[in-house]
Amino acid sequence: MAKELKDLTPREENYSQWYNDLVVKAGLAENSAVRGCMVIKPYGYAIWEKMQGALDRMFKETGHENAYFPVFIPKSFFSKEAHHVEGFAKECAVVTHYRLKNDPEGKGVVVDPDAKLEEELIVRPTSETIIWNTYKNWIQSYRDLPILCNQWANVVRWEMRTRLFLRTAEFLWQEGHTAHATKEEALEEAKKMIGVYAEFAEKWMSLPVIVGHKSDSERFAGADDTLTIEAMMQDGKALQSGTSHFLGQNFAKAFDVQFTNQEGKLDYVWATSWGVSTRLMGALIMAHSDNNGLVLPPKLAPIQVVMIPIYKGEEELARVVERLEIIASELKKRGVSVKIDSRDNVRTGFKFAEYELKGVPIRLAMGQRDFANGTIEIMRRDTLEKETISQEGIEDRIEKLLDEIQQGIYEKALKFRDSMITRVDTYEEFKDVLDHKGGFILAHWDGTPETEEKIKNETKATIRCIPVDAPEEEGRCIISGKPSHRRVIFARSY
Amino acid sequence: MAKELKDLTPREENYSQWYNDLVVKAGLAENSAVRGCMVIKPYGYAIWEKMQGALDRMFKETGHENAYFPVFIPKSFFSKEAHHVEGFAKECAVVTHYRLKNDPEGKGVVVDPDAKLEEELIVRPTSETIIWNTYKNWIQSYRDLPILCNQWANVVRWEMRTRLFLRTAEFLWQEGHTAHATKEEALEEAKKMIGVYAEFAEKWMSLPVIVGHKSDSERFAGADDTLTIEAMMQDGKALQSGTSHFLGQNFAKAFDVQFTNQEGKLDYVWATSWGVSTRLMGALIMAHSDNNGLVLPPKLAPIQVVMIPIYKGEEELARVVERLEIIASELKKRGVSVKIDSRDNVRTGFKFAEYELKGVPIRLAMGQRDFANGTIEIMRRDTLEKETISQEGIEDRIEKLLDEIQQGIYEKALKFRDSMITRVDTYEEFKDVLDHKGGFILAHWDGTPETEEKIKNETKATIRCIPVDAPEEEGRCIISGKPSHRRVIFARSY
Repeated sequence: MAKELKDLTPREENYSQWYNDLVVKAGLAENSAVRGCMVIKPYGYAIWEKMQGALDRMFKETGHENAYFPVFIPKSFFSKEAHHVEGFAKECAVVTHYRLKNDPEGKGVVVDPDAKLEEELIVRPTSETIIWNTYKNWIQSYRDLPILCNQWANVVRWEMRTRLFLRTAEFLWQEGHTAHATKEEALEEAKKMIGVYAEFAEKWMSLPVIVGHKSDSERFAGADDTLTIEAMMQDGKALQSGTSHFLGQNFAKAFDVQFTNQEGKLDYVWATSWGVSTRLMGALIMAHSDNNGLVLPPKLAPIQVVMIPIYKGEEELARVVERLEIIASELKKRGVSVKIDSRDNVRTGFKFAEYELKGVPIRLAMGQRDFANGTIEIMRRDTLEKETISQEGIEDRIEKLLDEIQQGIYEKALKFRDSMITRVDTYEEFKDVLDHKGGFILAHWDGTPETEEKIKNETKATIRCIPVDAPEEEGRCIISGKPSHRRVIFARSY
Repeated sequence: MAKELKDLTPREENYSQWYNDLVVKAGLAENSAVRGCMVIKPYGYAIWEKMQGALDRMFKETGHENAYFPVFIPKSFFSKEAHHVEGFAKECAVVTHYRLKNDPEGKGVVVDPDAKLEEELIVRPTSETIIWNTYKNWIQSYRDLPILCNQWANVVRWEMRTRLFLRTAEFLWQEGHTAHATKEEALEEAKKMIGVYAEFAEKWMSLPVIVGHKSDSERFAGADDTLTIEAMMQDGKALQSGTSHFLGQNFAKAFDVQFTNQEGKLDYVWATSWGVSTRLMGALIMAHSDNNGLVLPPKLAPIQVVMIPIYKGEEELARVVERLEIIASELKKRGVSVKIDSRDNVRTGFKFAEYELKGVPIRLAMGQRDFANGTIEIMRRDTLEKETISQEGIEDRIEKLLDEIQQGIYEKALKFRDSMITRVDTYEEFKDVLDHKGGFILAHWDGTPETEEKIKNETKATIRCIPVDAPEEEGRCIISGKPSHRRVIFARSY
């Protein structure tokens, strides 16, 4: 591993290769035999489980329940919402048959032509259609509302160019789908959930995000408004990390979901949907990690503290491990996850490198001198700072340090992110910043899709969002010179 | 609901209809627009989440980690293991295309014939093949073993006749896939995991099970041995509730997974796989419920205690609810899940019926006399016994009662199950018991697939298992009269 670790491509040399090396070498994920689909390995999945756990608690605290809807969607469902079909019913996995049979020529199995489905089924790329088709039967009156459902599921979008976690044909996600009696309540819900995502990103992932609205052309297919959280990666590119959509009455109309309101009149139901996915794993990795490997915020680290005994011979090992176990036991009582690595077939330097690669927030090492002196070496992964401290009160020290690391990673990311926000007033400046610095660019835009498209075609930068807290400011569009009332955020993105 | 509840078909009238009514009316699941696929509704999913939580902890306590493998499997993978292909690559969902396009005739979307996959993909019916293809790259030496992975996932088997939870085209499950250096270790693992399932069934589901080996013809396709837990439903039919397979070196050979053992020699890796699914929901419902609705063991109940205020007017409501909230708050501190139902638009009788239907283990009702007297009415769902008790010490009483109910449901099911085990020595008796009593039949069998097949064809009864604790007993096969050394268990089954 120490050797393999050296094979980690340096971040500054090739960011993209560094990312891929890291994902594979840290044991997070790998490509599978199926084009575009990944295998999420145990260490990567353990981080995802921590994300799921925290998000699931936040969803439940805000009144949501989990449910499960079919993985297949009849093809015709997509055609019912005009915008949705354009966005989602194109690059997708299509099930056309339901049986295989032995190859008459004896070569394995072949599709049985007699088992053709009357209507093709699409492996869900997102579930609005099947869910609103179901809600139709759940909703008659305002008393049946709101419905606040979430599902944890796999989805498939047939992406041509895939990258582990960031863009894969199959990915894991959660999708919330809510139904409301009023427009105001649905708008409130969409806002509440983007707030939940922002809080999760900041408190759990140590990832500062900008909350804003998508422009018309970047909006979810079938939504009246899309809220997004946008994060900044270390290479200056933006990463959309979660979205929450106000769907208006579009899906209710497409699936004829009406209810009797308090005034006794029939009306269409208002909808939201919102989701985050295993893409968050990509954001987490790219935002914090370095040339030694992963840097994990303690709240998402499967192992928060690793303890490594340094010894010669079994006797020394036994007494150091005994001491470490006492500390470990106290830490576990406090809810800290601890691993003691007393493998005998691996050198200490290898272990050090391995846990740096895996991003374990705190490393403790105890040798014979430490044992005798009642001291221990402690290293924090985020800064790589090392010191020798007393074993006395170590548990308090560690609990405090875990909080400091969580906060420290956030502050570092925030400082970086803020340094990567540039205000520009001309298109020349815009292109210059984009090419030489990257990051978020705050610029005036005339609000037209034509201008947006021109910028995108010429620079590959897109409008990431119109921040919810953007102050009013009179200015002129960097392209057309037409008046603009607030700056929007542009960036190249993942 | 009180009215709807009366619509629940009585168990003795039509068991199958009673089951279906119950699943739908209690809000557990319903059929979807996609043939054979169900929607798991929030209340049903909440029970499944409790099952998942308990099982996941047990898997982790026994050293397993979660991971995630692709939903698609290349068709050719199935042909690599000769028995497996026969069992699994037949009735399945086949993805043949990866794109839709606008219908040239303007009628929605159609499959794009240019987007045909070179090799068809199968939506996983089980994941041995894709996982062993992956393990090939993870395993070089005995130091890489064991691998103890589990995944929570959806799977698809194209069943022709489906029933909610019991047999659906798509279902949710977990599948453990482990890799070992020795046969002994793999055998030990398969045994350990069927033990985990048996413990889960008994301690969490209050469901007694018989652990045994499947006969050759009932074995998992690709396994050398299949262990099963078999439960008895109230209609006298058996339900296979979980299986654990010793796969020998079959998949290692099919996917060429070799390792260097401690002696430095190449050998094939030994394997197990084991799974339980949303079918357990069916077992839970059918084992314990009655004509009033669900009966849930407290450990799996989303709501363990429901509190219902009985009142006239807002003032009475307010003071009763205030008192109930004090009790609820104390119960929540102790980890008991509580709901206070103070809906004003629903009658008390309706509420009572609703929570009986939903199987909430304990119901508390407090009226004005109770309020004045410091008493409360308590009802346990399993026996429907009601009494009025003092509010003093109610929390201790409830905690104790929840344990009693958990145990009581188990004992009732055990007593019933034991009453449904019949020993027979002739085929006449066998058929008589099967037709007039049902249940598990202990009979001698000559060990041949021919006899097994004859019995199955003539009576629809199958060998559920050869119990692991079956005592040696000399006897003669009820069909062939040939000698047999132990009785096996026959039953009609789901």
